[in-house]
Order: sequence, then structure tokens, then C-alpha cells
Amino acid sequence: MIYNMDKLYEAVAERGHVCVGLDTAVEYIPEKERPAPLGKAASPAGAVLAYNKALIDATIDVAACFKVQIAYYEEIGLAGLECYSQTLKYLRDRGALVIADIKRGDIADTAMRYARAHFEGDFEADFVTLNPYLGMDTLEPWLEFADKKGKGAFVLMRTSNRGRYDFQMLKDSSGRLIYNSIGDRLSEIAASRTGKHGYGAFGIVVGADPQSEDGRREAALIRSERSDLFFLIPGYGAQGGAAKDAALLLRDGNGGVVNASRSILRAWQGTDGAAEADNGFAAEAARKAVINMRDDILGAVKANTV
Amino acid sequence: MIYNMDKLYEAVAERGHVCVGLDTAVEYIPEKERPAPLGKAASPAGAVLAYNKALIDATIDVAACFKVQIAYYEEIGLAGLECYSQTLKYLRDRGALVIADIKRGDIADTAMRYARAHFEGDFEADFVTLNPYLGMDTLEPWLEFADKKGKGAFVLMRTSNRGRYDFQMLKDSSGRLIYNSIGDRLSEIAASRTGKHGYGAFGIVVGADPQSEDGRREAALIRSERSDLFFLIPGYGAQGGAAKDAALLLRDGNGGVVNASRSILRAWQGTDGAAEADNGFAAEAARKAVINMRDDILGAVKANTV
Repeated sequence: MIYNMDKLYEAVAERGHVCVGLDTAVEYIPEKERPAPLGKAASPAGAVLAYNKALIDATIDVAACFKVQIAYYEEIGLAGLECYSQTLKYLRDRGALVIADIKRGDIADTAMRYARAHFEGDFEADFVTLNPYLGMDTLEPWLEFADKKGKGAFVLMRTSNRGRYDFQMLKDSSGRLIYNSIGDRLSEIAASRTGKHGYGAFGIVVGADPQSEDGRREAALIRSERSDLFFLIPGYGAQGGAAKDAALLLRDGNGGVVNASRSILRAWQGTDGAAEADNGFAAEAARKAVINMRDDILGAVKANTV
Repeated sequence: MIYNMDKLYEAVAERGHVCVGLDTAVEYIPEKERPAPLGKAASPAGAVLAYNKALIDATIDVAACFKVQIAYYEEIGLAGLECYSQTLKYLRDRGALVIADIKRGDIADTAMRYARAHFEGDFEADFVTLNPYLGMDTLEPWLEFADKKGKGAFVLMRTSNRGRYDFQMLKDSSGRLIYNSIGDRLSEIAASRTGKHGYGAFGIVVGADPQSEDGRREAALIRSERSDLFFLIPGYGAQGGAAKDAALLLRDGNGGVVNASRSILRAWQGTDGAAEADNGFAAEAARKAVINMRDDILGAVKANTV
């Protein structure tokens, strides 16, 4: 079985670590491309789809993959989910790897329905994000799609929001942080589903922390304990992380993709010409932002290995 | 502020504890009402919507509320979400209280988008279910809707699936089960948002366990420690719980709703006349199942208080 995680590894080797986050809100789009009365789009969903397509075309050759955050589309209702479906289809038709950031987590029959919803049909993606709180049985139907079609997932383990201390980072009775129990179980899954580059079919979400001695120590520890797992790393750019932190979560220059959303989607804002910006202008700014971010991370990887 | 949780308390006092779960799969519907070639429906989503309406009409006066599990609708894709939206609208137009079982859980701007998606617009519901793993900041935008519009939520705390032992029921460094940290935080929220019947605007999901001495002890403990929280109790019927277990999670005969889905949706199967069943027949069987369940729980509550 060729897993999608193998393809993602190869995409990183070819094009760097950037995962372009299409968390596209109407207010991130240049005014003249928004719905009336400001702009010429027929609807909010129409404006978002046109913007997504422009940014995909401009970044596909310099990004490892794309991540589509479904919440932004659910917010727009039925028309938003039609736009979500068309964004996924556009990405897949162009041969891009797509992570559906859905953070679903349910059990038994319900989990099976969710897996079919997001690994088949109108909302088919290559990867999903999953929430494991209910237990490991939440992952089973999704794993069937790894075995059948090579599908992948990133399971929430350790995030970088301030609420991480509420539950994820509680200590268990042996003094270990709770999130390590999730890592342990994912390593078990990886042992029976190892791809050709040494990573399991399912990976984990690990947030890059604001720079601090503790944060760096924790990142290095997570990376060394989870050498079998590919990481989805949020927190670059608008969320306050940096290339150096992200690089600590990589392994031999691969083993993870680093997501940025707003810093790419809104890159056109505050540049010369922003007042007159259209989608073409914004796409060009997004491309530059992706290239800068890619080179920033590659530089940090290099600095770490010297 | 009148919270939706106040209305739910009153619904339980008037009509008992049953929450009808509309986890409607096509295979739960009588054959002649399914899509062609078996039946006369125009599409899977059309069959599900007609079935939901028939069951809502037949059970609305004997149920406390309805719970719609979005995974079953996401599975059918865009048409399924149109059906989900119309099911919610039908329920709200009829004055029923609706729990959207979406188990969303995300942070910051993304959480705000989810809250708008499910407390406004095409997918507006009275209550949602939420997953707190990422931290308490996941709840903030939802709470704004409690303050503004009385909206409610049930936060996953302790479920009844076998995977509950993987994370929820790990012990923390002081020997307490992890899920209690979630209960503690919900009690803090309840203290600043107490409804007129003494329950917080947001409640918790607590699974009814298969009958055992330990399970009963745990249920009684949860109930006594969380007298400020309203419970959404899954696990009755097809999931193997029973009225006696559910009653242990109630307080003075109120304080919780008990969900059943398949045992109501499929009540027509295996009865005399099932071979010729249509939606009217299935709705009548569902009504009987709800009444039986209601009386079963009321009987158990009475037995507990004698």
C-alpha cells in the first residue's frame, strides 16, 4: 500500500514544508472581489471559491499541501459547504494533497458515517484531522480507509493554544503529560501501518510553541519520542510561532508540514497597492509569502543540522 | 436571561426524559419509502427528510427534545446537509427543542466560525454538543451565544464506549479521573450562568453504563458532584444501557435527558406488518417506543425515590 503519508513526505522533499491553510473568510479577500455592494462577487461563497482557486494556482508548485478548515465554510451554511466541496475537488483535480481540517471525533456507527463523509463523495479529502478524546475506537473506521485507499489522518495530540493546559497537559498518575497517551497509541498504529519512508499512515497534530527554553525542550522530546509519526504543525505566522520552533519538530529535514493560514491569505494587506488589490494581486502576495516561509523553514532546518 | 436549558428542564417536567435521536440512515427506513428501485423516494436525502418529519410529528408530544446527529447527514454529502438544515428548521418551526450533535471543538477564530455556523443561519440549533480536548478556550465563542441568545451546549465528559478508558478515564497526578477536570470547569461556567431551575446554561454528556456495581457507584458520584449541571445521557436502547442506569444520572426526577436513536428509528422492524411498513407505520411504532421508554424511565425514577 502506498499511503498518502508517503506522498506527503515526497511533496515535502520536493517543495518544502509549507501547508497552505485555506481558512478563507470573506474579510480576507480584496474588497473589489467581495460580494456586492463592495465588490463584484455574486455571493460570499462565490467570492471565497474564486479566491481559493486564485491562491491555489499561485502556490501549488511551492507548497507541500493544502489544509481546508471546514468551520469557515460551515459558517456560510449550505452555500459554504458547496464551496468547500468545490475547493476540495479543485485541489484534487490539480493533483494537490489536501488535509480536511474537520477535527471530527465520534464512536461506532457515527464514526463510520463521518469517515465515509470525508474520505468519499462530495467531501473527499486525502487526510483529515481527528479528535481522540472519546477513545481509540473513534479512529477505527478511518483506519479502514487507510488500509483500503491509503488515506491519512492527523490526530490532535498537543496544541499551542492557551487552553492546552486544561486537559492535554495534565499529568497522569505516573507524572507524564496526558497527551503522551495519545502519542503512544498512534505509535502502535504506525507499527502496523508503516509507509515506505518510515512514517505511519496516521500522524499527529503538534503545535509549535512560542520561543522559550521549556518549549524547545518539549518540542525536541516529542520529536525524538515520535520518530515514527509525521507531524502537522500549526502555529506559524499569525499564531505566533516561528521557523526555528517549527524546525525542532521536523526530523532530518522532513517528517512534518507547517501550516499557515492568515499570514498567506492576508499577505496582500498592508502592501503597496493593497487599496486597488484584486485576486491576482492577492495571489501574487500569497505566493511570495509561501516562498518566504518555505525558505525561512529550510534555513532553520539547515541551521539546526550544521 | 431565559436559557434554553431552562426550557429543557420544563420540557422534561411536562413530557418526560426522552431525547429522540434522529441519526437517520436510509437502511432504517421502510423499503417502500427508500429511494428507487426499492421505494418511491426521489433521493436518499429526500427519504431521510420525509422519515424525520413523520417521526417528529408522531413523537413531539411525548418527547422532551430531539437530537440530530450530523454525521449521518454529512455522509450523504451536500444533499444530506440540505436535509439536515431542513430537519432542524422543521423542528424549530414546530417549537421542538433541538440538540445538534456535532461534537465540534476548535480554538480562537475557528471556534467562533463554528459557533456562528450552528447557532445562526442554515444550521441553527438550540443546543450543540462540544468536544473540550483542546481546552476551555474552545468554549468561549459558544458561551457568547448563551449570553446573547440563551443557547445551550453539552460538553463531552464521560462517555460509555469502550474507548473511554483510553484518555477520559486515565487518572491524574492526584488520582482523580481526568474527566473530572472537565466537570470542574463546567461547574465554574454554571456558577456564572445559572438558570432559573438551578442548572447552568451549559451541561455535560455522561454515558449510562452497563449495569454493574462499579458503574452504579460512579454514576451516583457524578450526579452528586455535578448537581449544577444538566446531563445529556446517551446509551439507552441499542447502546445497551437501561432505565435504571439512566435514572441514577437524574436528580429529583429531572436534570437530564436520555437519548435513544436506533431503538426508536428502527422500532417498526421485527413487528407484525413490518414487511408492508410505510412511514406512517414506522412513526406509530416510534411513538410507542418513545412512550415505553418514557414510562420505563419514569418508573425507574419512582423506584429510586421510594
